[in-house]
Amino acid sequence: MAETLNIDVSRQGLRDITGEVAAAVSRQADGDGVCHVFIQHTSASLLVQENADPSARHDLEQWLNRLVPENDPLYTHTMEGPDDMPAHIKAALTACSLSLPVEQGRLALGTWQGIYLWEHRHHPGRRRVLVHVSP
Amino acid sequence: MAETLNIDVSRQGLRDITGEVAAAVSRQADGDGVCHVFIQHTSASLLVQENADPSARHDLEQWLNRLVPENDPLYTHTMEGPDDMPAHIKAALTACSLSLPVEQGRLALGTWQGIYLWEHRHHPGRRRVLVHVSP
Amino acid sequence: MAETLNIDVSRQGLRDITGEVAAAVSRQADGDGVCHVFIQHTSASLLVQENADPSARHDLEQWLNRLVPENDPLYTHTMEGPDDMPAHIKAALTACSLSLPVEQGRLALGTWQGIYLWEHRHHPGRRRVLVHVSP
Repeated sequence: MAETLNIDVSRQGLRDITGEVAAAVSRQADGDGVCHVFIQHTSASLLVQENADPSARHDLEQWLNRLVPENDPLYTHTMEGPDDMPAHIKAALTACSLSLPVEQGRLALGTWQGIYLWEHRHHPGRRRVLVHVSP
Repeated sequence: MAETLNIDVSRQGLRDITGEVAAAVSRQADGDGVCHVFIQHTSASLLVQENADPSARHDLEQWLNRLVPENDPLYTHTMEGPDDMPAHIKAALTACSLSLPVEQGRLALGTWQGIYLWEHRHHPGRRRVLVHVSP
Repeated sequence: MAETLNIDVSRQGLRDITGEVAAAVSRQADGDGVCHVFIQHTSASLLVQENADPSARHDLEQWLNRLVPENDPLYTHTMEGPDDMPAHIKAALTACSLSLPVEQGRLALGTWQGIYLWEHRHHPGRRRVLVHVSP
């Protein structure tokens, strides 16, 4: 059964969840397989991205904020606040599920890869991320 | 073996396939695992998105149509009609495969999540979506 | 255990890896299941796209280069060259993992689908792609 990670998120942006996912993998598997990560929300998403220089993540956030700005006159779905519709669009352009290789109970990521929860709202609260290792 | 869903699609836009996918899952599994959904086309894609307010999906479609318009002078691939090249680009920006958690034979989606076939052409016809549940 | 494909890439753009992935699948499986493909880099990505007319892939590359240009004044992460930050953004907008159906040891792609490594840097070198077939 998938393990649910409850991730407390306080603000918009990229939050590193590599440690939480790796710990869930080690609880479920000691062999080889695939780790499936899924986020149960439509205004936050998942991303594998460079974990070294924070400036790369900063630019990525800024770039997407510029591509999908708040208060675009195109939006009709505005009842839940100016950050809601951009959040749905950003989630659609990124991923809700990731499938990551596992070798001997460990995530086989590249040297510079981290797993991020990309929060697209300003005041999100708790996010649910499900982790399941398949053989 | 994966089950093929033949989805008749008559127009561009988001079509809810949550019911069809959930039914395929219940035919394949009564335990826990992961449901893999794959679309065998390059001008339509898959999306997990908010299933409550239709205005959110409307804005999402309009936004992507504006980002990837028809008749862009950049296009050289124009033999198959003005909606063909935008369709390929939109498919590249979204997903061809989704991996969704299954618990006790049921999709474990978030409260507000639905599964959509995102059709990017105007007169598509039948689309093939494959569903396979892994342990 | 996942098989590592070492793909030598000499330039930016889409490189067809369908043959390499299909060969890895045939070495791992003769039954049904799912092929998980993962790229261990954050400035290259994976794509399922039309394999027939090269003009579609050409336009796709050009379109993304225009959406995410080099030398955007927004970028602060510029130490690794003008193609580095665009590469991270392009990777974030596309996929790092794909889950593809396998039937009787063969990839069950659509008629017009190919699997591509989308290289986003100009002088990349060797890229590592992991392939694992799950039941």
